Amino acid sequence: MTEQSIIDILTLGQRTAPNRCGVGDDAALLYDDRVVTQDTMVEGIHWDDKLTPEDVGWKLVAVNASDIAAMGGLPEWATLSLSVPNTIEEAWIRAFSSGMRQALTHWNIALVGGDTTGSPNCIVASMTMGSRRQSKWAWQHTAKIGDDIWVTGTLGESASGFFEPDKHPYNTALQRPTPPVQFAHAIQNAGLIHAMTDLSDGLHKDLKQLCEKSNVGALINPSDIPASSTLYGNRNALSYQVAFGEDYELLFTAPPRTERVLRKLAASHRITIHCIGKITTEQVTLKDTEWPPAEFTHFSK
Amino acid sequence: MTEQSIIDILTLGQRTAPNRCGVGDDAALLYDDRVVTQDTMVEGIHWDDKLTPEDVGWKLVAVNASDIAAMGGLPEWATLSLSVPNTIEEAWIRAFSSGMRQALTHWNIALVGGDTTGSPNCIVASMTMGSRRQSKWAWQHTAKIGDDIWVTGTLGESASGFFEPDKHPYNTALQRPTPPVQFAHAIQNAGLIHAMTDLSDGLHKDLKQLCEKSNVGALINPSDIPASSTLYGNRNALSYQVAFGEDYELLFTAPPRTERVLRKLAASHRITIHCIGKITTEQVTLKDTEWPPAEFTHFSK
Repeated sequence: MTEQSIIDILTLGQRTAPNRCGVGDDAALLYDDRVVTQDTMVEGIHWDDKLTPEDVGWKLVAVNASDIAAMGGLPEWATLSLSVPNTIEEAWIRAFSSGMRQALTHWNIALVGGDTTGSPNCIVASMTMGSRRQSKWAWQHTAKIGDDIWVTGTLGESASGFFEPDKHPYNTALQRPTPPVQFAHAIQNAGLIHAMTDLSDGLHKDLKQLCEKSNVGALINPSDIPASSTLYGNRNALSYQVAFGEDYELLFTAPPRTERVLRKLAASHRITIHCIGKITTEQVTLKDTEWPPAEFTHFSK
Repeated sequence: MTEQSIIDILTLGQRTAPNRCGVGDDAALLYDDRVVTQDTMVEGIHWDDKLTPEDVGWKLVAVNASDIAAMGGLPEWATLSLSVPNTIEEAWIRAFSSGMRQALTHWNIALVGGDTTGSPNCIVASMTMGSRRQSKWAWQHTAKIGDDIWVTGTLGESASGFFEPDKHPYNTALQRPTPPVQFAHAIQNAGLIHAMTDLSDGLHKDLKQLCEKSNVGALINPSDIPASSTLYGNRNALSYQVAFGEDYELLFTAPPRTERVLRKLAASHRITIHCIGKITTEQVTLKDTEWPPAEFTHFSK
């Protein structure tokens, strides 16, 4: 079964209208102007020994914070459910907890509760995260024709760390992703953008989904996609940038007139942003080339 | 490692003061007068083939609703994370979803989002549930000396179903627990009770925890503990009632003057309540007998 077919059964195929309580974009909007999201990491599926237990703890917080950032929100609280085999070592729990605490502190998130259970063998860590309250959220369905398409940071580092671990043993994107939560909130709050999502499934898939929801197309200039320094000399660079995911950067669209303010805000948040193309009336295309095949499947997320 | 030692590491040993955002009793209180809880069920740990996939879906909702009921709240929304091996059959997902939907409908809870992931072998279902807003909550630390101790429903049915599945193949408590959510909210809302929790770990353990938090003792009259009809003629009856758990009934303490109103409210909610003892200044004891040993360990919750 595909993930989508499972989701369709569980949600009865419902897609609640935006701005209503219910299934949102990257997170779900509640009645009281908060969003909530839940992301789970399973040993052997979402991580292997390329991640230390500290990394796993950090990343679990980061991937949830990224979903809230994608809506332009600020995370406030989290609950954790941790299922572990009874052979688990205390050192693992301590290291996981330490990485998780570092990330919770980094984003000023309170761990308010949760559950710990046994597990027959693998470790499963599931976190739910709620946002602070705000009246306006960023959505995926609101991109407008003529918008500039922007990404934060660089793309492709996670793929490098995944496929070439010996060359890139310390890989921030894969091990300690740091989604630009404050910046996402700032540009949403300032009304500078039309649509936003986070880059968790790869630029191609995430952009296609945003465009489908917005009923628009996109033209991307491959040479404008910011490359991680880990990609120098790599002939799979474009694939790593667009077909792997796990970058936990932002993808957003904005009217061209906001460019100056966006660049200023990015500079003040000490992050880089790049305009990589335009929202169009056509298909989601790469200029002068084809989208690389999504052969770079990553376990089976 | 014990569950408590894992919890101590993850929470840094913190117990947030009641009435503040943070780790609560059965659920955690958020800044905006809502509580949130997260409960996880793992195949082979929390269920085996005595539960159908429909039962698992129903029970996942019920155990979370029970935690919110224990605080006197009303559940409002839920998120679901479902991790399944790629050999999972569509029939399993459909049946699980159907049971979950029945319970969500029963308690009027909106499924607002979640996550689906792969898993190397076992199924892991983790649900987070949030309550409606209310200003006053039921706690475990507020039992008063002289309070009557009450339980809803009957105790011991789950244990019968677990240990004697052939004699009790259809076991509502084990397979389709139905915590008295509306009644819990009604007695909290009417200001009739002093302290409350739900009976998920067994009367002995749950009562001991409530008394420790309240810095009081309790004297329980074993013959007043309401027995499930599945216990007739069973010489382990008392053990099944107090040392197994999974009853998902309520345990609450109330000043004796509220008895008449409590009985009236119970009748109007069509549930039974029994007064099983008194809050004292002494230990948590059973009248004229010892607490049965907690030999009835249930997998390794």
